[in-house]
Amino acid sequence: MQLNEKTCNEMRIRFDYNNMMSEFVGEEGIPRELLLANKKLCKEAFDIVQKNRGKDMMGWAQLPYDQEEVVEDILKTAEKVREKFKYFVVLGIGGSALGPIAVFNALKHLHYNDLPDDKRGGPKFYVEDNVDPERMAALLDVIELDKTCFNVITKSGSTSETMSQYLIVWDILTKAFGDKAKDHMIATTSASKGNLIKLAQKEGLKTFYIPDGVGGRFSELCPVGLLPAAVLGIDIRAMLKGAECMDKRCISSDFATNPAMAFAILQYIAYGRGKNISVMMPYADSLRYIADWYCQLWAESIGKDIKKDGTKANVGQTPVKSLGVTDQHSQVQLYTEGPFDKVVTFIAVDKYRATVTIPNGCEEFPNVNFLCGHTMNELITTEMNATAYALNQKARLNNTVYLPEVNEFTIGGLLFMFELATAYIGEMFGIDTYNQPGVEGGKNATYAMFGRAGYEQKRAELNSAPAKKKEYICE
Amino acid sequence: MQLNEKTCNEMRIRFDYNNMMSEFVGEEGIPRELLLANKKLCKEAFDIVQKNRGKDMMGWAQLPYDQEEVVEDILKTAEKVREKFKYFVVLGIGGSALGPIAVFNALKHLHYNDLPDDKRGGPKFYVEDNVDPERMAALLDVIELDKTCFNVITKSGSTSETMSQYLIVWDILTKAFGDKAKDHMIATTSASKGNLIKLAQKEGLKTFYIPDGVGGRFSELCPVGLLPAAVLGIDIRAMLKGAECMDKRCISSDFATNPAMAFAILQYIAYGRGKNISVMMPYADSLRYIADWYCQLWAESIGKDIKKDGTKANVGQTPVKSLGVTDQHSQVQLYTEGPFDKVVTFIAVDKYRATVTIPNGCEEFPNVNFLCGHTMNELITTEMNATAYALNQKARLNNTVYLPEVNEFTIGGLLFMFELATAYIGEMFGIDTYNQPGVEGGKNATYAMFGRAGYEQKRAELNSAPAKKKEYICE
Repeated sequence: MQLNEKTCNEMRIRFDYNNMMSEFVGEEGIPRELLLANKKLCKEAFDIVQKNRGKDMMGWAQLPYDQEEVVEDILKTAEKVREKFKYFVVLGIGGSALGPIAVFNALKHLHYNDLPDDKRGGPKFYVEDNVDPERMAALLDVIELDKTCFNVITKSGSTSETMSQYLIVWDILTKAFGDKAKDHMIATTSASKGNLIKLAQKEGLKTFYIPDGVGGRFSELCPVGLLPAAVLGIDIRAMLKGAECMDKRCISSDFATNPAMAFAILQYIAYGRGKNISVMMPYADSLRYIADWYCQLWAESIGKDIKKDGTKANVGQTPVKSLGVTDQHSQVQLYTEGPFDKVVTFIAVDKYRATVTIPNGCEEFPNVNFLCGHTMNELITTEMNATAYALNQKARLNNTVYLPEVNEFTIGGLLFMFELATAYIGEMFGIDTYNQPGVEGGKNATYAMFGRAGYEQKRAELNSAPAKKKEYICE
Repeated sequence: MQLNEKTCNEMRIRFDYNNMMSEFVGEEGIPRELLLANKKLCKEAFDIVQKNRGKDMMGWAQLPYDQEEVVEDILKTAEKVREKFKYFVVLGIGGSALGPIAVFNALKHLHYNDLPDDKRGGPKFYVEDNVDPERMAALLDVIELDKTCFNVITKSGSTSETMSQYLIVWDILTKAFGDKAKDHMIATTSASKGNLIKLAQKEGLKTFYIPDGVGGRFSELCPVGLLPAAVLGIDIRAMLKGAECMDKRCISSDFATNPAMAFAILQYIAYGRGKNISVMMPYADSLRYIADWYCQLWAESIGKDIKKDGTKANVGQTPVKSLGVTDQHSQVQLYTEGPFDKVVTFIAVDKYRATVTIPNGCEEFPNVNFLCGHTMNELITTEMNATAYALNQKARLNNTVYLPEVNEFTIGGLLFMFELATAYIGEMFGIDTYNQPGVEGGKNATYAMFGRAGYEQKRAELNSAPAKKKEYICE
């Protein structure tokens, strides 16, 4: 996209939280004085985040600034992939999948893979983020191996799911192409640690590196996300510029000007007042997987057992993805009438990339005819406003993120805004935003069940678990 | 599929709730005596449901028994559609979309639309359940109008989203085909009420009827779901037989034998003990949209402001869809370490429809090599068991629905089990399971904003809403 001096201003994301405040939603809302009383907490969280920028696991904060060299390499590689291949398949899970899916869906045609080759203008795109055997078999049914480039993504190289996929695909590739198999596989991984870098070096694969300080859920703006995006023809420089502009707006702890801080402190206060659910509800099909991406970021970053000081926490809002207007016919009944346990965040789009008019010709049916002559654009926006109004009337907290358009720049900015918000709220809760110790329990149990060496004790523990009672099984 | 006397037994769905009980998860769990003390409540709920079967809005309970005639008509129509058309597009939202999507994804190839024509063996399938103009434009880019059959589905004929889509598509069809437009449109709607039946009769469309006593979220097993399924070549008689077998298992209020009752009472008790979130987590890509379908059923049925006796309720568990193993790398950190506010329901599959082996060849990397020689099937199942174990160790309530296979029969049974469970828990809460008054607020505000006649007062109300404060907008 065309970027110029005005872009930062014209493509500015707005955040409206009137409907979070008690002045607008009544006593369930946040009292003005309570919000103001939290300025100090905002300052403290902001200062820690600023101090840690670029250090340890906060490498992600520098991604808009320190990647010019790798961007060059990505663009060159992407150009070759686009010339040579008809299919591009990401093998990855969690943070290695959710970002690529979200950006693809936001910025490419909504039925991209179904377009004929000449209209698609790039390879068909698949992201394999599960180990369901039916899914792997289904993928192999629809790609042509000789026209497929795979991108295996795992920082540690020890993610069982991704490494299983890699082994399966690598076996098929070497059987089909022998020495040339390496032309069909690109590895994105840690430069220094883990198995995948060693495997990649052994096999002579093209590699991209995930910086040490960038964790999975904060990795969309590093090669994890940038390579797939570039292969799809997405302007990754504009994405990074959008992130940079957002970052530069967030230079103070003042929630009046820092939208990431406003989002964080409002959710933090709401959580303390019983809102343990955070609904993310874009009003655009293109943004539905941004909600999925947010769900990982929010859940895995904040859902923690203990605080950094070692005291018990068990905190975390449960993020829920929802889609407007679709889920008005599924979830909004609960949102308006159920418990007062959630905050709904709408993502609105000012200007859609298509306009569709509802034609006339229904005069004899007044309760349909009122739609005629309007556009779908008006309808979707009006329904969003109407839903916000209805939630308000029922004293349900909601806020809205407005994107002027959906494009590379605004998507980069949106992702970065939520990443900053996550960093801030993590400090407010006093937890480690960047670890995920809770995932280890299941991993270790899997290792033990698979008989991996070193997990004998865990296996003994599993075997000694109390036998299930038949009484508690309906069969 | 082949059905015989043994099918009911061999394809029996099991429900294991050991991990809901305090004997297994400690004091967060449900004490045995508390569960037993609720037998009376189960009996009361069961009796009301039995008494109301087939009456009022419980027409859905008879669907496995009273549709032989319509099934004949559906099969004949589906056969013609399959012969004549390359694309089949459902226009519908909420209950008119979620069931068709769920069943399609469960029972057809996971990349069905991407298969070549000869391997696909039926029309490409799209469900348009939003009014995003970009989505409508995208659809028109990928279908060939002369080879497309549309199925517009709305019981009332007043659903703004669906009627907008209908008007747009009908306009295009009549411009392209004149009098023959009607050959490209099938209407599924109320036989007696609303606009769509009148429009359909005026235009001479083929129509199927939604029984009066079948609401949107309970409509998958009526023509709403059966026609799209049949067009896709899915054995709808086997689906209905699966539902019938489930129904016949649920002939007593005893949760030891009635899995729908067990599910309902456990969620009911858990909700009363602070578990306001119900996670539905199938371990199969094929079942991911079953979770979406469940989310509507559960949210819209139970999320209610008032009880039937008029007293304040504001009840309702928030359903959350999750996918195993994928969301282990997104949500499970929160589930194991966050607040004690949820119940996780796994859906397990005993036998997947494909087997994929992880090849050998990684001996030098022990922390990958332990996977080699195993199958993806083992891996996905082991990870599910490991996750259940990890949740258990962290005192997090979970239960598992086991499907012997994913097929027409088990899917019919699964849907019916959740429908019955919803009916039971609705009675336990004492709310009206079948209405959705909370959706009206947003609808009426939309009508007012669109200037529909009769909504002048609402419009005045909207206009007199307090102006937003600039202070609460970051821009």
